[in-house]
Parts: sequence; C-alpha cells; structure tokens
Amino acid sequence: MSLVSFNPKTGQARVSDGSETTSAEVAAICERAAVAAPILADLGRAGRADLLEACARELEGRAGELVAVAEEETALGVDRLGGELRRTSFQFRLFASMLREGSYLGASIDHATETPIGHFPDLRRTLVPIGPVAVFGSSNFPFAFSVPGGDTAAALAAGCPVVIKAHPAHPATSQEAFGCLRAAAKLVGAPADAIALVHGQQAGIDLVNDPSIRAVAFTGSEAGGRRLFDIASRRAQPIPFYGELGSINPVIVTPTAAGRRGRQIAEGFIASMTAGYGQFCTKPGLLLVPEDAGTILDTLARSFEDGGQGWSLTADIMRRYQDGVDRLGEEPGVDVLAKAEHAGREGFAVAATLFSTGVERLSAPGTAILDECFGPVAVVLRYSGTDSLLDALPSLPGGLTASIHAEREDHALARRLVDTLSRRVGRIVWNAFPTGVAVSWSMTHGGPYPATTNALHTSVGPTSVGRFLRPVTFQDVPQELLPDELRDEGATVSARRVDGAVRLADDSGAGTA
Amino acid sequence: MSLVSFNPKTGQARVSDGSETTSAEVAAICERAAVAAPILADLGRAGRADLLEACARELEGRAGELVAVAEEETALGVDRLGGELRRTSFQFRLFASMLREGSYLGASIDHATETPIGHFPDLRRTLVPIGPVAVFGSSNFPFAFSVPGGDTAAALAAGCPVVIKAHPAHPATSQEAFGCLRAAAKLVGAPADAIALVHGQQAGIDLVNDPSIRAVAFTGSEAGGRRLFDIASRRAQPIPFYGELGSINPVIVTPTAAGRRGRQIAEGFIASMTAGYGQFCTKPGLLLVPEDAGTILDTLARSFEDGGQGWSLTADIMRRYQDGVDRLGEEPGVDVLAKAEHAGREGFAVAATLFSTGVERLSAPGTAILDECFGPVAVVLRYSGTDSLLDALPSLPGGLTASIHAEREDHALARRLVDTLSRRVGRIVWNAFPTGVAVSWSMTHGGPYPATTNALHTSVGPTSVGRFLRPVTFQDVPQELLPDELRDEGATVSARRVDGAVRLADDSGAGTA
Repeated sequence: MSLVSFNPKTGQARVSDGSETTSAEVAAICERAAVAAPILADLGRAGRADLLEACARELEGRAGELVAVAEEETALGVDRLGGELRRTSFQFRLFASMLREGSYLGASIDHATETPIGHFPDLRRTLVPIGPVAVFGSSNFPFAFSVPGGDTAAALAAGCPVVIKAHPAHPATSQEAFGCLRAAAKLVGAPADAIALVHGQQAGIDLVNDPSIRAVAFTGSEAGGRRLFDIASRRAQPIPFYGELGSINPVIVTPTAAGRRGRQIAEGFIASMTAGYGQFCTKPGLLLVPEDAGTILDTLARSFEDGGQGWSLTADIMRRYQDGVDRLGEEPGVDVLAKAEHAGREGFAVAATLFSTGVERLSAPGTAILDECFGPVAVVLRYSGTDSLLDALPSLPGGLTASIHAEREDHALARRLVDTLSRRVGRIVWNAFPTGVAVSWSMTHGGPYPATTNALHTSVGPTSVGRFLRPVTFQDVPQELLPDELRDEGATVSARRVDGAVRLADDSGAGTA
Repeated sequence: MSLVSFNPKTGQARVSDGSETTSAEVAAICERAAVAAPILADLGRAGRADLLEACARELEGRAGELVAVAEEETALGVDRLGGELRRTSFQFRLFASMLREGSYLGASIDHATETPIGHFPDLRRTLVPIGPVAVFGSSNFPFAFSVPGGDTAAALAAGCPVVIKAHPAHPATSQEAFGCLRAAAKLVGAPADAIALVHGQQAGIDLVNDPSIRAVAFTGSEAGGRRLFDIASRRAQPIPFYGELGSINPVIVTPTAAGRRGRQIAEGFIASMTAGYGQFCTKPGLLLVPEDAGTILDTLARSFEDGGQGWSLTADIMRRYQDGVDRLGEEPGVDVLAKAEHAGREGFAVAATLFSTGVERLSAPGTAILDECFGPVAVVLRYSGTDSLLDALPSLPGGLTASIHAEREDHALARRLVDTLSRRVGRIVWNAFPTGVAVSWSMTHGGPYPATTNALHTSVGPTSVGRFLRPVTFQDVPQELLPDELRDEGATVSARRVDGAVRLADDSGAGTA
C-alpha cells in the first residue's frame, strides 16, 4: 500500500515514495538489526557520540526541507517546527555529551574482600545494551518524538539498533529525517542496519512481535499504546514496553494566587492549553480554581474572542476531539465557559472549547473529565474551599505533570499539594504551566499509568537511556577482558562507585586494593 | 485452610498456627498498606535505616528458633541455614547503609539556565517510592529470599510497604520471621501495616490483582512466575513484575584449563551443583568441556561414589526433579555419566545425577537440556574443538550466570566467550562457580528472560532498590517544599548531579548559581 498523508489545513492528499512494509520485510530488517547490534556496541561510547553529533548536523543541514515537508503534513507552523527541529538536534548533542561523560553507566567496582558472611570475589558491574529497540513515532512531534526523536537518540546512545515505525500522519517527514540519520551513520562508519524505518500498522505489530526486538518505545494514545503493550507482554519472551500514553495534567490554583494573579494565570493557562492546538501530552486539561475566582473565570470566558481556531493533525484526531468535546458537553452539570468560532469545514479544523463545573464532578463514576482529549479543550473545576480541593485530589489518575499556582504564604496548603500530587505524577510544576518540556538531566517525562506503562522511567533527557540498558557483573574477570569503564586504570568515565562509595575520575581510587 | 508443611527428610506433616488468607483479608491488608505508605515514606531515609537495622537485630536475636524451625521445614542443614540467616541480617544492614549514604537516589539539580533552545526552568529530580509491593517468598531460601529477604529489605528501604506471600513449603518459618519484622517495626515506631504476611495460592493471585499493590517481586519457577507476570500485565493498571525464574548457568572449560586443572574444575563443579541439593537458581546445569578432557570426565564419573544424596524441599519439587531426570535420560544420545545411590524412599529423598552428550545436542529442537531442572542434576556437553564450542553458544537461552574456566594464554578465545555470553546473562564468573551470590553494590542477580521477567534489574544488592522507585521532577518548586536531597543547602546525600556533573557532598556546588 502506498503512503498517503494529508495537509491538515486543506485535507489535500500527498503520496510519498515508498509503501507499507511487509511482514517479510520487517523480519529481514529486524534480523539485520540484530546483526548490527554488536557492531554498534563495539563503536564504543566515543564512536556513538560521533554518530549522534553527525545526526544533529545532518538534521541541521536539511532544516529547510524538513520543516517545509513537516509543515505540509502537520500544519503546526514553521516557527514551531523549526524550534522543534533545533530541540531535536540539541537532544542528540546532549546524549553525545552523556556518552563522553560516562557516569550514566553507573560503573561499580567492588574489590575482593572478607566480610562477616565470608569471602566476596572481585565484582564489577556496568550497563550493556539490551538489543534492538522498536521506536514508535508520535503524531504530534514530527521530529522530537518521531524518527529522529528522543527515543531514537536514547537507544542509539545505549548502543541499541533502532527500527522505527513511522507515524502514518507524516510519512514524508519521516522519510526525509530517516535519510539524515542514515547519512550520519554512513559518515561515521556506523552500521547502516542500526537505523531502519518501517511503515504501516501491521508492520508495527510485526515489530513488537519480532524475536530480535528487545524493547519498545512508544508515544501515542492510551488505546493504541495499551494494545501494543499487551502484545509485548504476551510474547513467549516478554519485552519491556515503554509507552507514554495519556495525561490530563491538572493545574491547581490556590485562593491566594487566584486573588493576586488571576488574569495572568488564566492567560497562561489558555496559552499552554492551545499551544500546538492542544496536541501536547502535557496539555493542561484541568484547571482547579476557587469558585469565587472572578478574575480567572471572567478572563477565561473571553479567551477565544479572537482566536482559538486550529487544525488537528489527522482526520482521526479531529473526530476523536469532536467526540470528546461532545461527551464533555453531555456531562451533567458541565457548562461551556468559552468556545471559539469554528475555522471552517476545510481540512481538519477544530475550535477550542473550555468547560466548567464543580470539582465534585471529578469523583463521578466514569466521568469523561478524567479522559485525555487530544486538542484545545480543558475543564475548569470550581472548588468551594481548600478542603473540597484536597478531597478531590485522590480522584486524579496517574499523570505526567501537576502544576500548582500558589503564594509563599500558602506554605501549609502547598506542602499538602506537593506531597499528594508527587505520588501521582512525574513532574510538579510551580507557578508555571506544563507544556514545554526541557531536555535536561533532571527532567522526568513519565508517571504512573496511564501516563506511561512503566513509571520507573522518563522518555525525555539523558536518564531515558536507562530504558535500553541492563546490568552485567564481571566476577574475577581479568583486566584486559573488562569493558574500559571497569578497568583499574584508564577509566574513561567521570564517576563510578568503588567499594560502595562514589568517586570522581580525578580521585577514582580504583587501583587494586 | 490450615497451614501444613512437611519435613523433607521424613515427610512428616506439621500444622502451623494460622490459616490461608481470604480474599477479603487480602483486600483489607492491601488497603492498610496503602494507608501506611506515606507514613513509611515520611520516616525518611534515617528512620527507615533504623527500621532495617532493627530487623537485622531481631532476626539475630531469634536465630536459634529461626534456624530450628527452618531446618524442620527445609532440611537444608543448620550450618547452611545459620549462614543464610547471617546473610539476611547483613543484607538489611547493607540497605541501611545505602539509605544513610543516599547517592542511590540519583538526586539531580539543574539550575535555571538559558540554552540554544530557550530558557530552562530550575529542575530537580529524585526518586520516590512506587507504592505497596507484593513479595513472593521462594522455596529454597527460607530467609534470604523469603519473608525477611532481599526483596523485603529493598522495598522497605525504598519506602514501600510490603505484603509478603509466604512460600507454602515453610509457613512456620515465615511466621517466625514475620514476627521479627513486626517487632522491629514496633521498636522503631514504623507503621505495623507496612509489613504484612499472607498465605495461600489464591491470596497470592489476589495480591497481584489488588489495586493498591504497585509492584511485585517474585523468586520461583518459570511456570509459576509467568502466570503471575501475566496477571500483573493484564491488570487495568499494569504493574511491574520482577520475577526471577529459571536459569541453566552454563560452565565453559577451555581446552587449556581442562588440561591443566581438570580435577579441580570437576570437583568444584560437583560441589557447586550439589550445594543445597541442587536447589539454587544459580546451580550450574551445564558443563561444556573438550571431548578429550579425560581428567574431568573421569573425575566426574566418580563423583557420587560416596555422596550425592539429598532431599528436595517439597514433594512437588521432588516429582518435578524426577520427571526432569527421566526426560533427560530419554533424550537421544544422552548417557548417564554418574548417578548417586538413592537415599531411600522416606521423605523427599533424591539422588544426584550427571548426564553427558555432545554439544551439538544443545541446538536440538525442544531439547530438555535447556530446561532448568531444580535439584542435583547437570549435563556435561562435550565439544570437539573451539569452533564447535562457539557455534553452540547462540543456542543458550537468557540466564543469570555463565562461568568461564580459562588460562591467560586463552586470551582470544576468552574474549569471544566473554563478549558472547555477556549478551545472554547477568553475571560472568571467571575461574569459579556460580553458586554463592555476594551481596554487594556490584552484584547483578538477573538477566534476560527466562532468567528474569525484566533484565533491567537485579534482585540482589543495593541497586535492587531501583525496582521500587520512580523519578519525580520538581520544577521551580521553593526550597522549603523540596525533599532534603534536592535542597541547595543541607544535602544529606553523599553524591548528586549538579548541572549535569556528578558532585560529591563535600564539593556539592549546589548553591544557587
């Protein structure tokens, strides 16, 4: 089947080169990825850092073409797409620096010793690549969470070949980006088979079932992600499935903050909720405000007087958005607070909508308020006092983020909010909004189900590499047969653990005891 | 149903106090564990270190009673059981020291900064407890991998309440050990509901399905573990299942080593294979030797001339052992190399058996050689040259360990063995045998499926705590609301990452930039 994508603004079809990958082709690609695995690993950290930096440069060198084709397939705007592409190259370079620094390996050396429970041999532990990784590109980030995205960068950094399933919304962008990655591999002498691209829904299923694939990284919907998670878990040899699925990202405003910064908070919320036409996994979907927060509610009510139109990425997302908005509109006690004019019937146009109801609605069985709705919609929940606010929090499902708008004098309330919310989400945002995920060491882009299928990990930032690494211990193995980060001398990592204590490279203390 | 265990040496039944836990009781216990979770977390690292040390002391204080009852229920021998109990206390103390040291949290501070892709806010990341953990005790380690075992110590250290499913082979030992843990909790003022014990197969299933349970740790058979893994993965909210299942632990002997140390290797292998009557997850089940290794084969043939008898832990293990030995005996080309006299028909007596065949048998479809058989049995695989040895390695399944016996001049061969085997197992053992798992920072007790259901983790040593922790990021959150390990001043951890670089406590550089 040929590859067809649509311009969200016009609905016009575009036929790309290539076709859906057959099952036989997927099997052959995965087998070649398995063969490439030890070669990619043997490039070493420096070699793989070169590869990642070459990926960054190749993407930058084709920025014009990449942004143009992505704009045709996503309508996200050339500024946003240009920024996303810069972020994507930044991401590759950050992973390269992580490789050169080396402490991510958690290298650990325990010299042989006598203990109260007997002799312990010399034990040295490091992390090794898990094997070929299947990466599922997302619809909403054609670069940063797609073919050249964070999952690809993390897997390659780890030393794992990637077989990428292109998102069907942007096959041409995927092909163009894939060309850059392949060119980078060629430039640095990395195995070409370490980076592969497949198209088609069945190809994705085949990929998750393929015995050569050892882990899956996925960004997408809860329904689609869960289906693939189930396949991964039911294999004869189950593999880890790192799915980033759905999150409603509540934003909580204390009475003090509402009184003091109502307008600013309302405007910030709308900007965050409508960014990328509401198609961010961190889009704030709930705003909890005091019922007497007049400034906030008034400002929100006027939000879409001149704006709030946009385009869904796909016809399917548009339909699901409309269904979600309809369901919210039908909930008892839920009213429309603001609604944008519809931009028209061409393409996948959608209109932003803001609903409002009482916070008690959160605990109504089966409420649609707790379902993520991808697009520019949110629900304002009015609470009548901080007790009713705190009572409502246990109804919140697992999520990527929770944001708190508070003032210094709210200390006691804020502490309870931070404590409760940090048990439910991966990131607590203070006096800001959840969209805009920094790519840094301290980022967590993850959280309890359904935010992700595995709350132990992040899919953004250097620590996301841990999803694709497993520990191996070398017992009494001679120096010359050890990975370099475990040798007494010549350690090439900035920090490791020696006899239980963290040591920096300039004081590694790793000489034989 | 009342709790009945059997003395393996006599088959005599013993009725313990208590009964199987009903579904309603499991639900109530899990709910109370969820209530205890924030209280346990709030004890802080120091408070939980006190708890773990109290556990160690309570176990030591009742060592006589514990070992006596365990000997009645397991017949493993009082020396071995006493050693295992000391190891169990050692384990608690090691986790306590990990808590006081604090670097396991991977605390990371990224100060707000301007980057090529825009402003990054202040981001601080640490690890928080995942929630109540279900621990399934093993049959073969009534202390170290059961009620007071490594999984319990790791979960409590992480700040997660534990609900322990006692192994049905030793309910009385489980109750006695549980009493020690409860007494320890009382002594240090930890919530009693943070440590609970349940009995019965249905209780185990209920536990894995309970919505309050957030992770499962399991040590046991591949069949039983897979059943529970499937339940955990099919929940509405799936949870991580850390199962340590089966491993055949190959031991490979190079021609040089066989020629030079044949007798020593053969004797060491037999000692390792028969330790604990072959009921270790690290029991070496395969020995790969050159076909002309006369000394090794002759020594092995005489192995059980005066010994090799023992007792299975349960009637079920005895039956499965006998079935496994029968299946091996029926494999084409597989011969008995040595067989012990049967100790008699009383209790669960078994006789050690050693089979022998050509290494090519490894790749025979459906061969029983690759199935773990719990008990004192192993298969010697003769290879005709190092090429046939290397050709056979890809047939080896994932495992906990692989051991290599080689000499310095085997360098080239040894490198290939280390490379190939480290892609399949969690620990490479050099010139030694796999039984005897040190409890230390650099230990990996894990490996690719079916060794474990999640190769990213170890179930032994301080890093096993990572199974029960998930990351949370605090964005721009005021100092006073941060966990102490993330505050600028007063960091109580020995190392953390600051702006991407690992810093030690005495040079933390964490002051605001």
